[in-house]
Amino acid sequence: MSDPRFTPRRGFGWLEPEFSDYESSRVVVLPVPYDSTASGWGGSREGPWAILEASGNMELYDIGIGREPFRAGIHTLPELAVHTGDAGAMIDRIESVVCEQIDAGKFVVTLGGEHTVAVGSARAHAKRFPDMSVLAFDANADFRDSYLDSPYNHACTLRRISEVAPIVEVGLRSAEKDEHDELREAGLPFYQPAEYRALGPEAIAGQLSDNVYLTFDLDAFDSSVMSAVGTPEPGGLHWDEVSELLAVIAQRRRIVGFDVTELAPQLGPRANAQLAAKLAYRLIGLALRE
Amino acid sequence: MSDPRFTPRRGFGWLEPEFSDYESSRVVVLPVPYDSTASGWGGSREGPWAILEASGNMELYDIGIGREPFRAGIHTLPELAVHTGDAGAMIDRIESVVCEQIDAGKFVVTLGGEHTVAVGSARAHAKRFPDMSVLAFDANADFRDSYLDSPYNHACTLRRISEVAPIVEVGLRSAEKDEHDELREAGLPFYQPAEYRALGPEAIAGQLSDNVYLTFDLDAFDSSVMSAVGTPEPGGLHWDEVSELLAVIAQRRRIVGFDVTELAPQLGPRANAQLAAKLAYRLIGLALRE
Amino acid sequence: MSDPRFTPRRGFGWLEPEFSDYESSRVVVLPVPYDSTASGWGGSREGPWAILEASGNMELYDIGIGREPFRAGIHTLPELAVHTGDAGAMIDRIESVVCEQIDAGKFVVTLGGEHTVAVGSARAHAKRFPDMSVLAFDANADFRDSYLDSPYNHACTLRRISEVAPIVEVGLRSAEKDEHDELREAGLPFYQPAEYRALGPEAIAGQLSDNVYLTFDLDAFDSSVMSAVGTPEPGGLHWDEVSELLAVIAQRRRIVGFDVTELAPQLGPRANAQLAAKLAYRLIGLALRE
Amino acid sequence: MSDPRFTPRRGFGWLEPEFSDYESSRVVVLPVPYDSTASGWGGSREGPWAILEASGNMELYDIGIGREPFRAGIHTLPELAVHTGDAGAMIDRIESVVCEQIDAGKFVVTLGGEHTVAVGSARAHAKRFPDMSVLAFDANADFRDSYLDSPYNHACTLRRISEVAPIVEVGLRSAEKDEHDELREAGLPFYQPAEYRALGPEAIAGQLSDNVYLTFDLDAFDSSVMSAVGTPEPGGLHWDEVSELLAVIAQRRRIVGFDVTELAPQLGPRANAQLAAKLAYRLIGLALRE
Amino acid sequence: MSDPRFTPRRGFGWLEPEFSDYESSRVVVLPVPYDSTASGWGGSREGPWAILEASGNMELYDIGIGREPFRAGIHTLPELAVHTGDAGAMIDRIESVVCEQIDAGKFVVTLGGEHTVAVGSARAHAKRFPDMSVLAFDANADFRDSYLDSPYNHACTLRRISEVAPIVEVGLRSAEKDEHDELREAGLPFYQPAEYRALGPEAIAGQLSDNVYLTFDLDAFDSSVMSAVGTPEPGGLHWDEVSELLAVIAQRRRIVGFDVTELAPQLGPRANAQLAAKLAYRLIGLALRE
Amino acid sequence: MSDPRFTPRRGFGWLEPEFSDYESSRVVVLPVPYDSTASGWGGSREGPWAILEASGNMELYDIGIGREPFRAGIHTLPELAVHTGDAGAMIDRIESVVCEQIDAGKFVVTLGGEHTVAVGSARAHAKRFPDMSVLAFDANADFRDSYLDSPYNHACTLRRISEVAPIVEVGLRSAEKDEHDELREAGLPFYQPAEYRALGPEAIAGQLSDNVYLTFDLDAFDSSVMSAVGTPEPGGLHWDEVSELLAVIAQRRRIVGFDVTELAPQLGPRANAQLAAKLAYRLIGLALRE
Repeated sequence: MSDPRFTPRRGFGWLEPEFSDYESSRVVVLPVPYDSTASGWGGSREGPWAILEASGNMELYDIGIGREPFRAGIHTLPELAVHTGDAGAMIDRIESVVCEQIDAGKFVVTLGGEHTVAVGSARAHAKRFPDMSVLAFDANADFRDSYLDSPYNHACTLRRISEVAPIVEVGLRSAEKDEHDELREAGLPFYQPAEYRALGPEAIAGQLSDNVYLTFDLDAFDSSVMSAVGTPEPGGLHWDEVSELLAVIAQRRRIVGFDVTELAPQLGPRANAQLAAKLAYRLIGLALRE
Repeated sequence: MSDPRFTPRRGFGWLEPEFSDYESSRVVVLPVPYDSTASGWGGSREGPWAILEASGNMELYDIGIGREPFRAGIHTLPELAVHTGDAGAMIDRIESVVCEQIDAGKFVVTLGGEHTVAVGSARAHAKRFPDMSVLAFDANADFRDSYLDSPYNHACTLRRISEVAPIVEVGLRSAEKDEHDELREAGLPFYQPAEYRALGPEAIAGQLSDNVYLTFDLDAFDSSVMSAVGTPEPGGLHWDEVSELLAVIAQRRRIVGFDVTELAPQLGPRANAQLAAKLAYRLIGLALRE
Repeated sequence: MSDPRFTPRRGFGWLEPEFSDYESSRVVVLPVPYDSTASGWGGSREGPWAILEASGNMELYDIGIGREPFRAGIHTLPELAVHTGDAGAMIDRIESVVCEQIDAGKFVVTLGGEHTVAVGSARAHAKRFPDMSVLAFDANADFRDSYLDSPYNHACTLRRISEVAPIVEVGLRSAEKDEHDELREAGLPFYQPAEYRALGPEAIAGQLSDNVYLTFDLDAFDSSVMSAVGTPEPGGLHWDEVSELLAVIAQRRRIVGFDVTELAPQLGPRANAQLAAKLAYRLIGLALRE
Repeated sequence: MSDPRFTPRRGFGWLEPEFSDYESSRVVVLPVPYDSTASGWGGSREGPWAILEASGNMELYDIGIGREPFRAGIHTLPELAVHTGDAGAMIDRIESVVCEQIDAGKFVVTLGGEHTVAVGSARAHAKRFPDMSVLAFDANADFRDSYLDSPYNHACTLRRISEVAPIVEVGLRSAEKDEHDELREAGLPFYQPAEYRALGPEAIAGQLSDNVYLTFDLDAFDSSVMSAVGTPEPGGLHWDEVSELLAVIAQRRRIVGFDVTELAPQLGPRANAQLAAKLAYRLIGLALRE
Repeated sequence: MSDPRFTPRRGFGWLEPEFSDYESSRVVVLPVPYDSTASGWGGSREGPWAILEASGNMELYDIGIGREPFRAGIHTLPELAVHTGDAGAMIDRIESVVCEQIDAGKFVVTLGGEHTVAVGSARAHAKRFPDMSVLAFDANADFRDSYLDSPYNHACTLRRISEVAPIVEVGLRSAEKDEHDELREAGLPFYQPAEYRALGPEAIAGQLSDNVYLTFDLDAFDSSVMSAVGTPEPGGLHWDEVSELLAVIAQRRRIVGFDVTELAPQLGPRANAQLAAKLAYRLIGLALRE
Repeated sequence: MSDPRFTPRRGFGWLEPEFSDYESSRVVVLPVPYDSTASGWGGSREGPWAILEASGNMELYDIGIGREPFRAGIHTLPELAVHTGDAGAMIDRIESVVCEQIDAGKFVVTLGGEHTVAVGSARAHAKRFPDMSVLAFDANADFRDSYLDSPYNHACTLRRISEVAPIVEVGLRSAEKDEHDELREAGLPFYQPAEYRALGPEAIAGQLSDNVYLTFDLDAFDSSVMSAVGTPEPGGLHWDEVSELLAVIAQRRRIVGFDVTELAPQLGPRANAQLAAKLAYRLIGLALRE
């Protein structure tokens, strides 16, 4: 009953109702416009809608993997309301919504907002996929136990996640010395780009369990590729190598859910939002390929 | 069944479904992201969504008129698809959609896009309200018969509209000499701000028939008030005097529909989108007051 | 011992050490880069430094009042660290620092950040000046008891402040209906611009006790004057009328402290930061005139 | 021989060759993209081209004065090359070019660039019109004898000009105390906006000799009207009152030349460039009205 | 007769009259500020002047190829006027102007504007060089027969061009599935970046006839290299590999004309305009090297 | 005595007083906000503060070299005052301040501002380290004897420096033909990126004397890596190869001082300022490693 005189609504991919109604959609996208703990350059609260806006500027056939991911159905939920008083309560809210969606048989894509939102989503997936491991893309270790008086600050994200599932990080190039010492002493698999390049994607896949939750802080990309993030860093990953790694992970493991976070659209060109949209779309295509 | 963990979707006013479902809504908002004939500074295609985005930043009680316009129900239609080959066909599309909505008993608010979109909306209203007159806010005469090879260029908007209903313009301060001579010779009521101030709002109301369609090119405002338009002009109207005129018109006449056009959000601060949203909300409140 | 080969450091006014050393300064400026509870358009965390940066672009003689406020000495404290987990704890931190500075004999100027920071500053002043009243400039009522799950959300600021001192507001033009009803039923002196204009500055002064704490949310200004705020509103106050009101208040009452908040510099032109700097400098000049 | 398939070139007004060839033009526009002495916020080097660009967005009939100024012919010279080593040499270059143009019978319009460029233009006019006086619009006194080691810094502009012709300033609201004391002690006619409003335009005209050179630093405007300047100041002049003053001056005196300076387009909305273009066009129309 | 006190006018390269007069110039640059069919992010109408502006920031000796292309003479035509009612008529206008220039012995460089303008330029060249083939750089297939109701929408550009000359595309990474299937079934040489890298530049040259028209949609570049386009895509071409391919094509074939399109300057940093200018200058140098 | 309720002041790295007091610091950072000779796109006067601001967004442990450079102490001087009348006098001022700091036993880091500021810093170092050589990173030859009437224009920087010490340049890809011919005829080691890649870092080290002064014009980077410069150029150096070269130089030679110049923050994303901060921090870590 789609009327060609109208453009579809601005959910992810700007899809016709046939491919975006809740009931028939395999995928739900959860926008979380939250950046209350961001301590440096802010604005990731505007990330989810920038991604949704840019997603209408994508072609719906992903030439890179030869698929049309939208055919599985992608429904975009309304934005999660922000809890402004307490970061922990916000994470609980995310966790509860994601759990409900998994229980409803949906594949959940969480769009941040700051990286902290990943804690809620990862916890929900860890409850439903107890044997899962986590593949994190991030420029920062995010491994402090507490920062600026809060255990849920975005500088603590990967530590909080590591408490619910084993974690492998790719893209590391910024940390405090104590964090880094702790990572090295514990032998945690946090890889700098050069280390990752030496290992290759198969080795990363080999360190992950069958079910993989993927958390993507966009600052893992080199700052020439992605400047619209709160802590842009040179010396990072490029699109083609990320694409290759994702393809290998999807082939060797099962991606059970993912998040894309930290886009602060005012800090870079609009092209960055489009890249984030394309990344999320690619991941949907890869995750649902079976 | 609204879930407090979520923010309502980004239709006009970001309203809960209770106040934005199509069936129960008295008002429909039609976004028309069209700027294909714009010859100078472009970008009004991004106007409708900038207004919808900003409308979520408004309080829903309009203190200035002591009402809550959303209680009448405001449904936002999907965006009209753009016809890129032929401006006349685009206007026909607008006209047909607006006619359908009027016939369905809705009060229609058209959000441009360039001022040209007003031609389609005004024509639809003129068909359904044959005795209506038009109150136009505009910095430009927009009275050329054709411009840049097209009779539907945005420089011809008010001429096209004047062919279907008598028109009164307020805010004029830019025109070609031929246009201006023609207006003066024909004695058309196109008022410069100083002329309007000398006349006052009651005199304007007196020149309009009972049913009034209102077309608002945002460049009628002084460029200090509204810079995000393609042809910003100093020497224009200020918010308080526009507010007063609208209140008088609403009291003396019946507003049967309106459009708000020409917001090009990249050309000015975000505050301009919020002003446009507040203007549309005020007009809804005034129009539906009975 | 100032070296003419160097520009003074970027504290408020970019003053030579002679006029900005802590010991000899009568005034301290406290920058609070906090915007964690902001629910709409963010970025006021960048306000304090935008004001400090712009303050170097001012002349140090204020022609409007014929004084050189810097001669009293203006020391700029380091920025307050942000507590990212709990808004209440952040307000407590502000309160404790402001109390310490008052106790050290300083006149304290707090630069936000979101309006919430005013709660901490106002509380500190209310403890030290128990008979004080508060003059608030604000477009919004900010009178909700709780918002987005927090009693310290910036939509609750004036309610929190009203709990420690009687309050008069000027500039109101945005509120929820319940808030507005409550204000009117309680007969609280919250004035819309037109109401203020009808009363005049002397009447406002008459409603305040001898000691006045002034809290200035920059959205009190008309959005043509100040667009770089999270909730810009048309129909607001203009510079000259604010200047006049401040002059009268300073003449009739004693200003014991003030804050300037809500500048979100990325949302408007740099001129807005300069206006905020000039406003703060004017207020220092007026407050210390005796 | 104009070819309707092409838009005219981007000289002032984007005029057809018939109205912009050097020989037949009464007016020459001299763009001077110079801002080397600017000490605060820079970028006025981009002002001349921003004005030329925006001038193509104007209607060529000036409704406000009922004339078509372009009919006198307006030729835009190439941009003056910048002398980067020595401000004095740059001013000499401006003076020599302006003298040549006056001698060729042209009415010269100088577009800055920083206000310093006015010194060169004013000197040239003072040589050719020995009895002229100067009407300056400016927020700043610009009356220092030297600043940042240079007598040609933009903070010294009006002092340098006052050395070649008597000067009246309107718009003053920023100065150092020494400057201001000096102005008052010497009884120089430098008027703050409120002082000007008390006097009215006829009184200003009365203080000027028959031949008037007009120098317009755009920061004379209120910063809501014009934010794209290096030292934006609230409390300034509005468009309508400037328009009125210019009309009276043109009626009572003879404008022999003028400059428009200090537009730094990146600091404000594009609307500011259009206002500057319209101001220059209005002044051409007024000056050449006889 | 060049006067060193002036900077040359802002035609391509900001060249002295000696190297930019029409008669003596081998090259003409045709700016076409047209983006009426753009359906997503607009603004390429501002591309031609952004390129001309940036071209003055280039050194005129191209170190990469050891030549001074300006010595052949480069004249910049006035901008083509926009036909706002009908995209087909606009393309006809481009075609007629380009034909005239080829007939006058000029090498024509067309600066868009949206990619659609290439249809007019390619058609003109195909008429004058009947055996020519086309090398297209593009991220998109642009191979739809009609889009948004128009056969001249920018999504149809390469299809329209392929109707007048055989085409090879490099840079493909975005298409609809139907387009892509059609391309593959027809065996058309549309290469993704990885496919191009596997083939190498000589193989591309081998697929082209002696006379080559080159159409360059700037989105062929990786979005880290070029973000100022309407459809920025990661995974694209980098500067060095494009430079190498162009050098090989120029060596093996004869470039008879080219266009550079789709720069939307507001969408990325100014550096993107400079890259586009340098690309056009490089192509001039390569094309005229014999 | 650091108070955890406050963030340290915004000197380089936003360091606690313990690591930034003048006396105990091995390093001094000298901000020079000077861009008076810039002829093209300006704004590098804002570079130093953009770098200082961004430096607070860095982690203080440099994972890439496994060190914490701040432990040596880094004191940020106040900004150098600008001499607006005479570029030569400005350079003398820089030279005198840098000499004083070297004599006080400090390692001096100069932050531009335009590249011209390097002349003052290099001269000071050449006086104190008579046998030093200079390693220059630059896209431009900067080897003109005079430009725009001044021998201190930023287009003459490397020529002026070469007069006090032997120079090796890496990153060249823009020059006038005469400059380039002169460089080649004199056999000066100015390397284009491809030439550098063929030589490798050891060969560069081999051409330098034991003591090396490093001058870094940020346009040496590819314009995808660094767009916020006045003359952005594609085809430049990437972060990883610069990192490698710096590491080799530091290992083989002794870096006696350096400058980082030409950041014009408004011309690119904020990520560019962060890259410049990280570059300076890396260089401090490398230089002080013994």
